[in-house]
Amino acid sequence: MTTRIDQYCLNVSDLERSVAFYEQGLGLEVTHRIELPDVREVVLSGDGGNRIQLARHRDHEGPIDHGNAFWKLYLDTDDCQALYERATSAGGEAVAPPARLEQWPVTAAFVMDPDGYQIEILQHHDD
Amino acid sequence: MTTRIDQYCLNVSDLERSVAFYEQGLGLEVTHRIELPDVREVVLSGDGGNRIQLARHRDHEGPIDHGNAFWKLYLDTDDCQALYERATSAGGEAVAPPARLEQWPVTAAFVMDPDGYQIEILQHHDD
Repeated sequence: MTTRIDQYCLNVSDLERSVAFYEQGLGLEVTHRIELPDVREVVLSGDGGNRIQLARHRDHEGPIDHGNAFWKLYLDTDDCQALYERATSAGGEAVAPPARLEQWPVTAAFVMDPDGYQIEILQHHDD
Repeated sequence: MTTRIDQYCLNVSDLERSVAFYEQGLGLEVTHRIELPDVREVVLSGDGGNRIQLARHRDHEGPIDHGNAFWKLYLDTDDCQALYERATSAGGEAVAPPARLEQWPVTAAFVMDPDGYQIEILQHHDD
């Protein structure tokens, strides 16, 4: 029996606004859209094929209530500074600019998507 | 510039309880643990290498407040019935037993993890 971790699904308050940010700000590509009676869903893929699913329930109103459940999404890139600038230029909220971590050979930056989901952008270094 | 979707991180209320469920109930394997002053983290991997990160903030008390942000996590398997039984036997709450979908060649089942995160177990069929 196999278990493979596939996409996860985040509720968003404005589907097209979020899709635009994940496309233009983060460089993901829409792979398909699913229209159901109670919800609209969009799946986006990054390099390597891993996916994220965004969903907008038709009865949802107002901003997303984050509670304290989902902490953050990690994105790997070969250019943290460039992706950080691209994300913030496309409407992502700047949380922390790229900084080299002390413990690991990694540069990390933080942005928030239009609903306030936190995204950690990581660039791994060889040294 | 590349963008690869990597792991995502869910806050949990009891780290070892959740790790035990994701290992024994879902068949994932712990790849590493990270101890930081304010948070303990465990990363688990499934078949194919995709990962999930569970975090327990040291100042967290009480159950997880889910709000309406995170909807669900998808797991792919070659045996939906067996994984569903394994998950519910390991303490996962049964939400919906395996059922073949009408629209797609997929069997889907739903369980909830110990904190109430919803997990959709998918088995894709060739026909």
